[in-house]
Amino acid sequence: SQEVAHCIINMNVRGAPLIGVTAAYGMAMAMSEDSTRKNIRKTYQMLNDTRPTAINLKFSLDRMRGILESTPEENRSDRAWSEADKIAEEDVEQNKLIGENGVILIEEIYKTKKTVNILTHCNAGWLATVDYGTALSPIFQAHDKGINIHVWVDETRPRNQGLLTAWELASHGIQYSLIVDNAGGHLMQNQQVDMVIVGADRVSAAGDVCNKIGTYLKALSARDNKIPFFAAVPTPTIDWKVINGLKDIPIEERDVNEVLMNTALSRQNKYTLHGLGQPKVSNPGFDVTPAHLVSGLITEKKIVQPVSITSMKELKKSLGKN
Amino acid sequence: SQEVAHCIINMNVRGAPLIGVTAAYGMAMAMSEDSTRKNIRKTYQMLNDTRPTAINLKFSLDRMRGILESTPEENRSDRAWSEADKIAEEDVEQNKLIGENGVILIEEIYKTKKTVNILTHCNAGWLATVDYGTALSPIFQAHDKGINIHVWVDETRPRNQGLLTAWELASHGIQYSLIVDNAGGHLMQNQQVDMVIVGADRVSAAGDVCNKIGTYLKALSARDNKIPFFAAVPTPTIDWKVINGLKDIPIEERDVNEVLMNTALSRQNKYTLHGLGQPKVSNPGFDVTPAHLVSGLITEKKIVQPVSITSMKELKKSLGKN
Repeated sequence: SQEVAHCIINMNVRGAPLIGVTAAYGMAMAMSEDSTRKNIRKTYQMLNDTRPTAINLKFSLDRMRGILESTPEENRSDRAWSEADKIAEEDVEQNKLIGENGVILIEEIYKTKKTVNILTHCNAGWLATVDYGTALSPIFQAHDKGINIHVWVDETRPRNQGLLTAWELASHGIQYSLIVDNAGGHLMQNQQVDMVIVGADRVSAAGDVCNKIGTYLKALSARDNKIPFFAAVPTPTIDWKVINGLKDIPIEERDVNEVLMNTALSRQNKYTLHGLGQPKVSNPGFDVTPAHLVSGLITEKKIVQPVSITSMKELKKSLGKN
Repeated sequence: SQEVAHCIINMNVRGAPLIGVTAAYGMAMAMSEDSTRKNIRKTYQMLNDTRPTAINLKFSLDRMRGILESTPEENRSDRAWSEADKIAEEDVEQNKLIGENGVILIEEIYKTKKTVNILTHCNAGWLATVDYGTALSPIFQAHDKGINIHVWVDETRPRNQGLLTAWELASHGIQYSLIVDNAGGHLMQNQQVDMVIVGADRVSAAGDVCNKIGTYLKALSARDNKIPFFAAVPTPTIDWKVINGLKDIPIEERDVNEVLMNTALSRQNKYTLHGLGQPKVSNPGFDVTPAHLVSGLITEKKIVQPVSITSMKELKKSLGKN
């Protein structure tokens, strides 16, 4: 399970839903070795400390810990593996349903357009989940239904997850164009984007959407150009304890080398300033799009639209939570 | 002068003001070889076709052509070199004055802040002009006056001109942090930016600012967070013939390899999708920030604020134009 933690920290495993599922299996691995209460606590802590922003991690770990603590020690290992399987299966089911709910929005636009142009940021496809993806799930379903889709794929610096999205779309035969993160606003101003769909790492109980850094800029631009901006959100991504996402969701500050690397400007494949060494860097990993800029949340239950404290409370109720 | 054209196309020479000055010298070089009217026209066309967006190019070339056509053929070469020198000197003087006008805005913020945090996009320093720079000119002057400055430097994909800005700032001992283009919105939401200053490639007669792709997103975010957004604009960057910048400024679509290169993700230093070849790419080079999002234009004459048809007309009058 230490290896699992490393995979999450280094982003070998990434994408909020997949992180959650992977952490559950990490707990199961730990239980196979040592199923004491002490090791539940130790593993919980170690895995929970890997990344601060994606709430699915905590959701999975809380669920695993709760169940394991009320399970006799000798049964814990089996119970842990079966619960992790269940979390994985639920993830698949949620994302399938997100696709079914979200595709309705795309079909609506397709009534008046020959091709539906969708912009997405980062990677929220099946590489970021167990299957289907969140933001890409409605896109895959629309494509399967014969709808002409073209996706504007944000490169998503510094880690270039847009390449994962481009790869997923190319694999499915879906038309797309990779663009730098700077380009989306211009495309929206020029009526080249009909809709934005992104994933989320954590959504507040008021509907504020925390997602990969740069999402907020696209939401602003969508609003300025009257383009619908949706987040695809399995309900385990909602943190019901946080109301004000801007104030209370911790934003991971990641390694400066993520910005310095991934370029071929120097022979070391690292940015350097001629004669002045490496530049000073700041590298926040996520930002928060306030609820009022979000047209709707596509969840596995329903589309929450408009996004408000009231509509979020109704969603919570439908999940059987207080 | 063909070599000059190549340097502009390939961005060995870049930055709207420097392109203008360089084109003037390109014309002078052509006149030294062949000072016929035919060659004025030919060189004008060749240089003017290099890049479509920066208007300083046309400004310089129109001025050179006008003067040369009314100069006897035998004097044209000398006249061309002296006029190009004059354009270069004027550029230096304009940028110095932009610094003097702009520094007042920084001093104002410094009254209530220990450090003034300024965000800039692309490179508008002395590497983009003959000297001082446009957007960076007020920053250099503020630093020289002992004001504590910290600059957030947008990486500026796809060509990473932020590294030029980082280098200029580091050379002057000015504090800065290089950030990905996605980060600025988050920083603005968290009160880490006091002011935005960018350059411009062309400004419309209504004050719409065409600048490096991604500028518009920063302007939106500045507005959303009540942060002043200024463009530093020598008056030759204003295209008095264009009113609606969004409709009538041509946006250069640049080579897709600019997006595919400059990364170390593959051994060829080119993006590839495993087994699926190179991704499809779109690469618009500029965008237009509508005047209503611009707090003011810092010109060599004065700061135009607020930016409106009326205030722009006043500026035009002060320049002695109809």
